[in-house]
Amino acid sequence: MKKFLTIIILAVLSFGLISCTGDKTASDRLHKVALTDDEVRDINALIGKNGLITRSYNILKDETDRALSHGIDVPPPGESGGYEHEKHKQNYRDMKNAGIMFRLSGDEKYARFIRNMLDAYADMYPELGPHPLSYNQRPGKLFHQMLNETVWLLNTAQAYDSIYDWLTPEDRQKFEENIFNLMVYWFTVENPHEIDRIHNHGMWTAASVGMIGYVVGNQDWVNMALYGSKKDGTGGFLAQINELFSPDGYYMEGAYYVRYAMRPFLFFAEAIEKNQPELKIYEFRDRLIRKVFYSALQMTYPNGAFIPVNDASRSMDIKAPGMLYGTSLLYYRYGPDDNLLGIADIQNSVYLNAAGVKLAKDYESKPVKRPTWTSVEFTDGADGKQGGFGLLRTGEGDDQTVLGMKYGVHGLGHGHFDKLHFVFWNQRREIIHDYGFSRWVNIEPKFGGRYLPENETWAKQTVAHNTVVVDGKSQNNGNRKAADKMHADRFFFHADNPALQVMSARADDYYPGVKMQRTLFLVEDQALEYPVVVDIFRIKSDKIHTYDLPLHYRGQYMASSFELRNHRDQLKPLGADFGYEHIWNEAEAEPETSGWVTWLDGYRYYTWIFSGTGDSKFFFGRLGANDPNFNLIVHPLYILRQSGKDHVYASVIEPHGYFSEAEEVSRQADSIIRYVKVLSHNDTGTVVQINGQNNLEWIVTVYNGDKPDPEAEHEVYVRNQKIQWIGNYSLKKY
Amino acid sequence: MKKFLTIIILAVLSFGLISCTGDKTASDRLHKVALTDDEVRDINALIGKNGLITRSYNILKDETDRALSHGIDVPPPGESGGYEHEKHKQNYRDMKNAGIMFRLSGDEKYARFIRNMLDAYADMYPELGPHPLSYNQRPGKLFHQMLNETVWLLNTAQAYDSIYDWLTPEDRQKFEENIFNLMVYWFTVENPHEIDRIHNHGMWTAASVGMIGYVVGNQDWVNMALYGSKKDGTGGFLAQINELFSPDGYYMEGAYYVRYAMRPFLFFAEAIEKNQPELKIYEFRDRLIRKVFYSALQMTYPNGAFIPVNDASRSMDIKAPGMLYGTSLLYYRYGPDDNLLGIADIQNSVYLNAAGVKLAKDYESKPVKRPTWTSVEFTDGADGKQGGFGLLRTGEGDDQTVLGMKYGVHGLGHGHFDKLHFVFWNQRREIIHDYGFSRWVNIEPKFGGRYLPENETWAKQTVAHNTVVVDGKSQNNGNRKAADKMHADRFFFHADNPALQVMSARADDYYPGVKMQRTLFLVEDQALEYPVVVDIFRIKSDKIHTYDLPLHYRGQYMASSFELRNHRDQLKPLGADFGYEHIWNEAEAEPETSGWVTWLDGYRYYTWIFSGTGDSKFFFGRLGANDPNFNLIVHPLYILRQSGKDHVYASVIEPHGYFSEAEEVSRQADSIIRYVKVLSHNDTGTVVQINGQNNLEWIVTVYNGDKPDPEAEHEVYVRNQKIQWIGNYSLKKY
Repeated sequence: MKKFLTIIILAVLSFGLISCTGDKTASDRLHKVALTDDEVRDINALIGKNGLITRSYNILKDETDRALSHGIDVPPPGESGGYEHEKHKQNYRDMKNAGIMFRLSGDEKYARFIRNMLDAYADMYPELGPHPLSYNQRPGKLFHQMLNETVWLLNTAQAYDSIYDWLTPEDRQKFEENIFNLMVYWFTVENPHEIDRIHNHGMWTAASVGMIGYVVGNQDWVNMALYGSKKDGTGGFLAQINELFSPDGYYMEGAYYVRYAMRPFLFFAEAIEKNQPELKIYEFRDRLIRKVFYSALQMTYPNGAFIPVNDASRSMDIKAPGMLYGTSLLYYRYGPDDNLLGIADIQNSVYLNAAGVKLAKDYESKPVKRPTWTSVEFTDGADGKQGGFGLLRTGEGDDQTVLGMKYGVHGLGHGHFDKLHFVFWNQRREIIHDYGFSRWVNIEPKFGGRYLPENETWAKQTVAHNTVVVDGKSQNNGNRKAADKMHADRFFFHADNPALQVMSARADDYYPGVKMQRTLFLVEDQALEYPVVVDIFRIKSDKIHTYDLPLHYRGQYMASSFELRNHRDQLKPLGADFGYEHIWNEAEAEPETSGWVTWLDGYRYYTWIFSGTGDSKFFFGRLGANDPNFNLIVHPLYILRQSGKDHVYASVIEPHGYFSEAEEVSRQADSIIRYVKVLSHNDTGTVVQINGQNNLEWIVTVYNGDKPDPEAEHEVYVRNQKIQWIGNYSLKKY
Repeated sequence: MKKFLTIIILAVLSFGLISCTGDKTASDRLHKVALTDDEVRDINALIGKNGLITRSYNILKDETDRALSHGIDVPPPGESGGYEHEKHKQNYRDMKNAGIMFRLSGDEKYARFIRNMLDAYADMYPELGPHPLSYNQRPGKLFHQMLNETVWLLNTAQAYDSIYDWLTPEDRQKFEENIFNLMVYWFTVENPHEIDRIHNHGMWTAASVGMIGYVVGNQDWVNMALYGSKKDGTGGFLAQINELFSPDGYYMEGAYYVRYAMRPFLFFAEAIEKNQPELKIYEFRDRLIRKVFYSALQMTYPNGAFIPVNDASRSMDIKAPGMLYGTSLLYYRYGPDDNLLGIADIQNSVYLNAAGVKLAKDYESKPVKRPTWTSVEFTDGADGKQGGFGLLRTGEGDDQTVLGMKYGVHGLGHGHFDKLHFVFWNQRREIIHDYGFSRWVNIEPKFGGRYLPENETWAKQTVAHNTVVVDGKSQNNGNRKAADKMHADRFFFHADNPALQVMSARADDYYPGVKMQRTLFLVEDQALEYPVVVDIFRIKSDKIHTYDLPLHYRGQYMASSFELRNHRDQLKPLGADFGYEHIWNEAEAEPETSGWVTWLDGYRYYTWIFSGTGDSKFFFGRLGANDPNFNLIVHPLYILRQSGKDHVYASVIEPHGYFSEAEEVSRQADSIIRYVKVLSHNDTGTVVQINGQNNLEWIVTVYNGDKPDPEAEHEVYVRNQKIQWIGNYSLKKY
């Protein structure tokens, strides 16, 4: 492994000395961001008595004591994902933890650990130049990207505050001159772009500068943190949180990034509240902080994993540090909530501060159930008028069924070309799934743990999602700048009737001249064992196009209504670009009129029943082509190809039956619904017929006009027969 | 779904009337196979008091009450896996359960349920002819194969005995004349081959005939069950259990089938003990029953799943009904054992009889730990001289590491061509795995739930296993009859030193003129985080052959020591037959001298480090070619191809590091061991050098002669340097 140590002597002595730490005595200073004496007393009183506090404390103590036993190593900077990189990350975690342990226990070994480590950093840091391996990122000095360095500072500020009183003035002067002043100079003077940037990296920069500002008493730093490098409100924390979130609190980059943004967002907010309560940060923008946190919680599946919108890890969940901190903090700052207690039950831990104390006490005093979220629609864009994300939910606790559709903004550099994409959760797993990012986080042999080339060529492309691809190209032709200028639109959202919930959204001109409207129903019916999805995807165009509707599933194909031609002894990719180059064409078929395909996933069968046209083609694909380093995770998918100018894909996804290999039991491997047909569609409405076993017959309508209105009357003719309904949709059972 | 009802009037009135049930009164008869009055009293006393008994009772009661609420349906026979087939299976389960519930509660609704159902069977059964959809199986009348019908009878005999006293003489006469007599006639007169067959189907037939014989008091039937249709000991239960098991209790078809065979084996044994204690069945053949049950338990992974030897479900585990019954029974009949309490802990249930009462009482009276099995070698063949199965284990409870090697007999019709195949369990999962069978049990759309064509073309073939393939063909050229005439041989097995366990076995002439010896070490070392496998596979031949060593893994390829050429835009199968036609050739490489490949599986990395030759070729394969109906489960595999006459594959499998995507932590993605070299090999011994980071250097030797002896001295020269060791192997660390 290569090591990097460049030596640059910086002439920065005149900068940042406003902090003047040397002139204070220990006794006249309160803790700015570390635990107060009251908090220390309250937590200590609960250790050994309260389960959540005790467990959280034991984990902290074990981790910290293990860190102390390993001694101190402050290596020169290294490459991303390598030992040195990971060690510097571990060091800030260890210092922060040691700070809390020192406050709680008063044991000076923890304070010495922090001091000695800061000493080592103070010896090295002034010697460092910009990290040479930054690639497309703004470089730090300890890390290849500045982002990691701001995280280092945000954590270390808390550790430093914890031992501030305990240190000698000489220590403080050394650390501030040799580390903090230089770091803040790097962040705010040499790279001011970052602190002013409306982006989660910007928020990290602002929060870290603000936190150390409070700790060392440098209000100038705090003001840059709050209002930007120019201190005029065009950058900095307040501008960032004003623009990064919709009025509902929805974060444009999606939940994976919001849980990461949550740390600077919440830690700095709490620091502001403690040090400048006059700013009333918790009331800011109609209690934005509350909305952001709750929208993040609602963007989770029932197991606590975040719905993987845009670039996202598929396994990141509400146990992430920022979410753990937020659960305690929100409970404390905005008042008790049973769903937060349910979240704490999944987290099985609390943050050790006054907030954690309050939550932990309530948790033990009442019965706690797993959280049950209701259906919700989030608006997107800072003005709340740039589409959104809809979530239909049914069922209780961790056995909920969830249907999500994405129809908001693109989401900047981490955005995917996936408007009108949907995901479906059932049977405690993601059945129709989102690939997430293509990245093996922190695994050094996999491109240093960074985003892989396949993130661009596969994960972001339209065909990697469950939405229509036109002419084999991605939305916006895969151009991010074009995509950032557009957004999809919400059309209607009705979740009042638990047995029939529906959401409809539009994405126009993501392909020039092509207008798309997708309407998704989540339907519960006595005739069906589980809720089913009804999907009506209408496309309008004045030119003929080829349309592909991919469905990404897992598990094992079981049966279909049609014969399939398997490419049994030679596979070729389905295309040459826009993600198709990564899909092996395993088999194809021509389902005439309506067709269905059944697969097994876990203990349940799933059948996709879809309307057909004379030229319908059906592909069985599998990921893995043109992936020279085996970076992609292989899964199968279906693609239903049809063509035309105006066209409607109508389909149903039905979960059914039960299979257990261990019990050797199989029940109802056939779906109830067997047939879907588009009877008619025009600019007034779409009429779809759904048939199944036991004489099941449904007629579903969707309003296609421009003025959604729950009370308007509509009519469409199907072969001289008038179909009438009131409102934006109807589902009639015969 | 098609229905089958053929009507054949059987003239069987003169047969089977020896049973003469009409002449007994209720009061003069003891229960033959159902719960005795003492058992009823003891169980009832524990319901609501003892956790295991209460839980087991509640499950039984819930299931039975649900069955009663659904009413009775006795449909005409149907196809395998279809509704009717499953319903008849459910019916015998429901009747058996209702019998126990009637005995325990005395509530006549349970008795009426059984009587009414038997009534329906008695009306239909005489009308039935042989099932027309039997394929290659002996047909039943209710079911497509007679096997299912024997299971029906074994269960129904218990239900019938439970209500025997309660029934009127007229009922009994009707049921016996119209069902049991006809069924036994079908089993013993029209198809006597089955009861005489040395096979698990034979044991089911014998046990079912014997059970109903005891119940109706027909000793002639019992004698056929015990001694065969000719009552001369050439067939029947005693001959079967004499020949199907090795002296160690190892079952030639493997654990998947033994758990199924366990039910007739144990239920009938217990019936014999109750009704003919003079046979001393529990002492039979040096307590064979005990050995069989314990060998089945030891053929499980730490999660309770059976090691999938030969045709086997990969998820069948010790919760199977026969294993549940056996845990209670063995504890009762052979005395207390903490490991059985640990098994009951996984099962979380007991059988409701005197045996279950004893186990459940002890379970509650002492602390119970998950079972820890030790390393063990089973001999194979009725004489114990036909090779065996070796299991090396290290670690405790459910965190054990397990290494298993198969070197016994072929295993009849369910046998695989897989001698010297191994499996490796680590991190609570099967890392180097066995495919098991190719079958979707009971899933009607998948070939009626029967064995699939790919079971022959893939699952049984040598390349589907982790053992050497010669010239691209399977062992015995894939001919089962040839394979059944041979067996592999144990060579040595040493498990005394937990840090260095080793087993060695041979398989000669499975390829004409080719002799193979595989020696597997399970090694623990301070320098390594987890136990590693050292694999030394020596091949002798006087002709030049191509050798392939496949390694079947799961998860994601991470890195290798060599460049690989990925077939990025076109895949072809690796071969045309012997299973190779099912493997896509995804990439290939020429690793020179020693090479390694690392993959990620779960939370841990695994590296295979192997010796090389000038012509080594390495293939990255993936299952799925020539699988027109997507019957196969797709997984990746590696194949290391080398050639020569005499040749040694030496390799190490090292688990290392940690990865958690949710925590975004990766640690030690590189293995410690980096280099393996064969220094020398001849008919005295093989010498292998293993090197790694931090100056790790091992020299491993294996004895290759014909007289294994732990005390013999051996020497081999490596470039004029004498390497000496004592015993069958050595591992020296420098």
